[in-house]
Amino acid sequence: MTRTSDVRDKIRPGSLDAIFRPSSVAVIGATPRKGTIGRQILHNLINYEFTGSIFPVNPKHSVVHSFKCYPSVLDIPDAVSLAFIIVPRDSVLHVVDQCAQKGVKGVVVITAGFKEIGSQGAHLEAQLLERLRDHGIRMIGPNCFGIVNTDSRYRVNGTFGKPMPRPGRIAFVSQSGALGETILTHAEEMGIGFSMFASIGNKTDVSGNDVLEYWRDDPNTDVILMYLESFGDPRKFTEIAREVTLKKPIIVVKSGRSAAGAKAALSHTGSLAGQDVSVDALFAQSGVIRVTTIQEMFDAAMAFVTQPAPRGRRVCVVTNAGGPGILATDALVAEGLELSLLSEDTKQKLREHLPDQASVENPVDLIASADADRYGVALDIVAADPSVDTLVPIFVPPLMIDAEAVADKLIEVSERHSKPMLPCMMGVSQGATWISKLKNAGLPVYPYPENIAHTLRALEHWRVWLKRPRGTIPQLKVDLQAAQELMADARDGLITERHALLLLDAYGIPVASLSLAHSADEAVNAATKCGYPVALKLASGDILHKSDVGGVRINVGSAEDVREQFDSIRDRLKDHSPKAQFSGVHVQAMISGGTELAIGMSTDPGFGPLLMFGMGGVFVEVLNDVVFRVHPLTDIDAEEMLRQIRGYPLLTGARGGRPVDLDKLALVMLRLSKLVTDFPQIDQIDINPLIAGADSCELAAVDARIILHPQPS
Amino acid sequence: MTRTSDVRDKIRPGSLDAIFRPSSVAVIGATPRKGTIGRQILHNLINYEFTGSIFPVNPKHSVVHSFKCYPSVLDIPDAVSLAFIIVPRDSVLHVVDQCAQKGVKGVVVITAGFKEIGSQGAHLEAQLLERLRDHGIRMIGPNCFGIVNTDSRYRVNGTFGKPMPRPGRIAFVSQSGALGETILTHAEEMGIGFSMFASIGNKTDVSGNDVLEYWRDDPNTDVILMYLESFGDPRKFTEIAREVTLKKPIIVVKSGRSAAGAKAALSHTGSLAGQDVSVDALFAQSGVIRVTTIQEMFDAAMAFVTQPAPRGRRVCVVTNAGGPGILATDALVAEGLELSLLSEDTKQKLREHLPDQASVENPVDLIASADADRYGVALDIVAADPSVDTLVPIFVPPLMIDAEAVADKLIEVSERHSKPMLPCMMGVSQGATWISKLKNAGLPVYPYPENIAHTLRALEHWRVWLKRPRGTIPQLKVDLQAAQELMADARDGLITERHALLLLDAYGIPVASLSLAHSADEAVNAATKCGYPVALKLASGDILHKSDVGGVRINVGSAEDVREQFDSIRDRLKDHSPKAQFSGVHVQAMISGGTELAIGMSTDPGFGPLLMFGMGGVFVEVLNDVVFRVHPLTDIDAEEMLRQIRGYPLLTGARGGRPVDLDKLALVMLRLSKLVTDFPQIDQIDINPLIAGADSCELAAVDARIILHPQPS
Repeated sequence: MTRTSDVRDKIRPGSLDAIFRPSSVAVIGATPRKGTIGRQILHNLINYEFTGSIFPVNPKHSVVHSFKCYPSVLDIPDAVSLAFIIVPRDSVLHVVDQCAQKGVKGVVVITAGFKEIGSQGAHLEAQLLERLRDHGIRMIGPNCFGIVNTDSRYRVNGTFGKPMPRPGRIAFVSQSGALGETILTHAEEMGIGFSMFASIGNKTDVSGNDVLEYWRDDPNTDVILMYLESFGDPRKFTEIAREVTLKKPIIVVKSGRSAAGAKAALSHTGSLAGQDVSVDALFAQSGVIRVTTIQEMFDAAMAFVTQPAPRGRRVCVVTNAGGPGILATDALVAEGLELSLLSEDTKQKLREHLPDQASVENPVDLIASADADRYGVALDIVAADPSVDTLVPIFVPPLMIDAEAVADKLIEVSERHSKPMLPCMMGVSQGATWISKLKNAGLPVYPYPENIAHTLRALEHWRVWLKRPRGTIPQLKVDLQAAQELMADARDGLITERHALLLLDAYGIPVASLSLAHSADEAVNAATKCGYPVALKLASGDILHKSDVGGVRINVGSAEDVREQFDSIRDRLKDHSPKAQFSGVHVQAMISGGTELAIGMSTDPGFGPLLMFGMGGVFVEVLNDVVFRVHPLTDIDAEEMLRQIRGYPLLTGARGGRPVDLDKLALVMLRLSKLVTDFPQIDQIDINPLIAGADSCELAAVDARIILHPQPS
Repeated sequence: MTRTSDVRDKIRPGSLDAIFRPSSVAVIGATPRKGTIGRQILHNLINYEFTGSIFPVNPKHSVVHSFKCYPSVLDIPDAVSLAFIIVPRDSVLHVVDQCAQKGVKGVVVITAGFKEIGSQGAHLEAQLLERLRDHGIRMIGPNCFGIVNTDSRYRVNGTFGKPMPRPGRIAFVSQSGALGETILTHAEEMGIGFSMFASIGNKTDVSGNDVLEYWRDDPNTDVILMYLESFGDPRKFTEIAREVTLKKPIIVVKSGRSAAGAKAALSHTGSLAGQDVSVDALFAQSGVIRVTTIQEMFDAAMAFVTQPAPRGRRVCVVTNAGGPGILATDALVAEGLELSLLSEDTKQKLREHLPDQASVENPVDLIASADADRYGVALDIVAADPSVDTLVPIFVPPLMIDAEAVADKLIEVSERHSKPMLPCMMGVSQGATWISKLKNAGLPVYPYPENIAHTLRALEHWRVWLKRPRGTIPQLKVDLQAAQELMADARDGLITERHALLLLDAYGIPVASLSLAHSADEAVNAATKCGYPVALKLASGDILHKSDVGGVRINVGSAEDVREQFDSIRDRLKDHSPKAQFSGVHVQAMISGGTELAIGMSTDPGFGPLLMFGMGGVFVEVLNDVVFRVHPLTDIDAEEMLRQIRGYPLLTGARGGRPVDLDKLALVMLRLSKLVTDFPQIDQIDINPLIAGADSCELAAVDARIILHPQPS
């Protein structure tokens, strides 16, 4: 593993043009036998009319599929820019060496039997990568389904599937070959076209991040779709995705969502699946649109490539049947969209042009007798209403109504207005000629309103993302020297509670201060200073969970009680852990009132530090009402975290509670993030509770635990 | 309205056989012009080969579609059992009279323009119903899309759509004609067959409840599907559905889910849409399976009619590609299913028969080289594992693998075992011949794993419902006389707080008792009796919200304080509402510790009383963590309510809290339900908080409010 990553670092990879924009290709392992991969790739390249020359390579044949076949790539008289490799696994390295000798710059290795089958394969795969780096060759695969570039200047269909992808403005990358083929088939049935496609298999050289970066600048690509099972380098993904999503939307199906699914991902690709909470955090911070199903992915992609961006979330539904209108309303509201409140003026105009039985409220019901003209008039009227961001015409073709004329009218109306239109054509085979007509005219057509609702959610997600301020990581003044001194005192990766609170204090996070009392007298003095009632907490570097040894007393109300409890804490420790060191008792003022919050940080092996915010108490423990973000936080990230918990109304004063100062709270999150930045040795932080809006102070961390990364012993 | 329901009560309706099992039909309003409804219905009846005679009726024509056409139904020489009516609205009554004279027993009125267009239409519709009742004729419609019975003894396609539904074991009723047609088209594309179909339009005579009851006993129907926008009589629905779901599953798409959607439903059918919370309650209590989309409905129906019922929720996935296996795992877990933990024995057997690269963990990955034999062996092995309730084979057809042979093998395996099998065939057109072969052999085939996950959720829902004890409404001893006396004291529909608590007490619901003190001395006596601290609450029949007038003091700790607060409450009332009567102050013991709950009842105009249970405080107010059931509750209903809230772990002792006695709590719900039964004049009950698990008592209602129905003045 270490070796591989050294190799990765050593060599700066060349452009993916070598793979996606070849001038000539070799098919190494091409065979004449139908039904073999070697034959099918050749067949697809030929029949897709690749614009360069194709050279089959196979020592066992002199002609394959009417093409002269060469014994090795070295025997080809012309230059070769890309090679597809379908030879047996143990010949791959040799073939790659020959490719290098020939000056080939890119290879697509279809052959399987590498990392995915265990350590022996992994070893071979590491050798393969080293060879590629040495030769300066880029590789897709191994263990993949191939690549496609529909650009008329190249016309590469280097897959071994049945579909002949039509050109379009969607690029798609799949970590699973099988799903890649499934998706190309599905797209063909939906009439969806692609700019490029890549099945990246084991991602040994070219990763999802690489193609993402490549497609960012591809003028033929408007939308990027990804099927992912794992992230090789989540931080790099975030970095690239943040930039790409400002130019074009990225829609992802990330599987391995459930714990059981993640286990399957592990045994499947041999790659470490990130926790799902990290994935959601990462997507939230990089503007990536996550969908659950392939269907949703395509539904959304269709609208992204054909329609202008909506200016808001308000939708007007225009239907010729009531039932579908209600279904649409339900589905839209469920996905966070709104129904436009049409203006009185709009409704008056509709009334003038529609029959009495029609409904001029949204969803506008034109009733079954609506023909092309009625659709045209109504859509023109509502399109002019400023409360309408998106038009959703629903049409269930009745007898006696010329459906094709309605389709023509929709096209006409959509060309007249700059607002997006997503038609729902129900009760009709999606292969009908007038459906194709709509699609060819650039209108996305959906069979049910729920498809449109999912799609508009995706469009809205991207709209909000583009409008969202980028956010900055603010410069924060902290007492770094004090913090460093406190960190230096850590014993066995553990920082004492008092030091943890002092560390937070050094970083400007308000804390309920803690005095260390070595004797009952000192404890009484400290309590008198901070005011009764107080909390008493055992101080001992040997005890991690002090409440387990009876080391916590709250609401201690008098000097007499302080004395008594001090002794009791010491005695209980002695009983419980005779060898543990008793360093005294911490005295802390009790904080009354306020809302309990919990914040913290944990380290994900793939994603690095994750920052957490949630309501404390039952909210975090029973309802799991917490939100995560990937470190480091921007100011916008911090604000979004606060708003995203279910208990958010409690922070703004619901139930007559005192509203929390959200700006100050966001600042606490940012200071915590800075602490994580400055001390990468921190593995986990728990601040629970952080009291907000108490009687005596705005914010105060009451309990804190900081744990460092385990040191190699 | 009153008139209509009187008519309904008067006449006992005849069997729906008159409509669905006709021996001869008249098509009144048949026309020769293509594209008209009158022509299309005739065309469909003829081409579906109705087994009886068809008589077109239209005074303007002597021949229609090669059939002799009669001027009126009275001119037909033979008996007519069913008439389709497509005449102009204002002729419908006259035509119905003629049908009666002719001895017709059933009519399907396609004609629109009744209730759905406003009061004039509603008036005509009421007249129509009265006429039908007088004549003893059953009617489907008006404003509907027609009916279908695929039974070979009848073969009725009385719709005006394009699809010619194929015979099958699914019955489907739609409240929307447009969705009815959409759905028949969709079913045709999926290859799904029906026993019967009904578009019930305005439901003037025959309602969804009627067809539900009719299909309960139909031997051709195994599953009932419904598209509903409203319930005419929710109590009757519950009653019928509870019985039907013990014999066959009912799957419902109920729209009007969102507030906006419900508004659309209102303007569409002129019927009152129930609140969505009531609908969920009603479905939960009657075993109805609610799905969101038409696709989910069909996906589930397909499995219900073809597969044996699973014995549990544990699924084994057998795939030839990793990616789809992960997608399946994610989708299954998200829908509440489990992945079987295969036994060591099973895994050993799999290892013996599968190549090294295969994964013998669930999802079992046979890898891309898997052919029919490998699928056969693996499926036979896992089918024999007792941890497997359902088999989900996934197949993405690779090159060089004979897909049809795999399909044949799946059929063979499914016939050998009694466990349900739901195959997922990916990356292939769902119209492929071998897909049809699977379907014809009785295997439900799905294009994506998520379709299967939805479907298994539905199967699991029904399995659990069938196993669920029916529940009884227990006989509870209450002090009815005391309750009646308290109710008699109600003033202006309002019961005083003290009386409300006494009423609960009379019904055996534990309350924190309240003493009425007319003077400060009496208050001190009462406080001394129940022990300090106490709560003091203003008693005044004129004040609904006593805290608004400063009428509540809690934690009053001494006799001196009681005196002071007594006076203060009286003075504040005088300041605030000089005319309000001061009846004294209630003294109540403070209850410390415990969990706040909230229970109650509200009356839904359509569904009647709904009982509510939830966690109190922030849970009910911010998180809306409440559950509703339709009155009356069975013991099982009450238990289910407790378990269904998100905060349930808090009732069972999460976070070290004291567990609540759930049996006692369920009994409180049942007693509340009995109170609602015995006093139908109650409109609303609020018991908030009900303290559970306090230091001093197991359960205690602390605050109660009971409001009676407004009386007509």
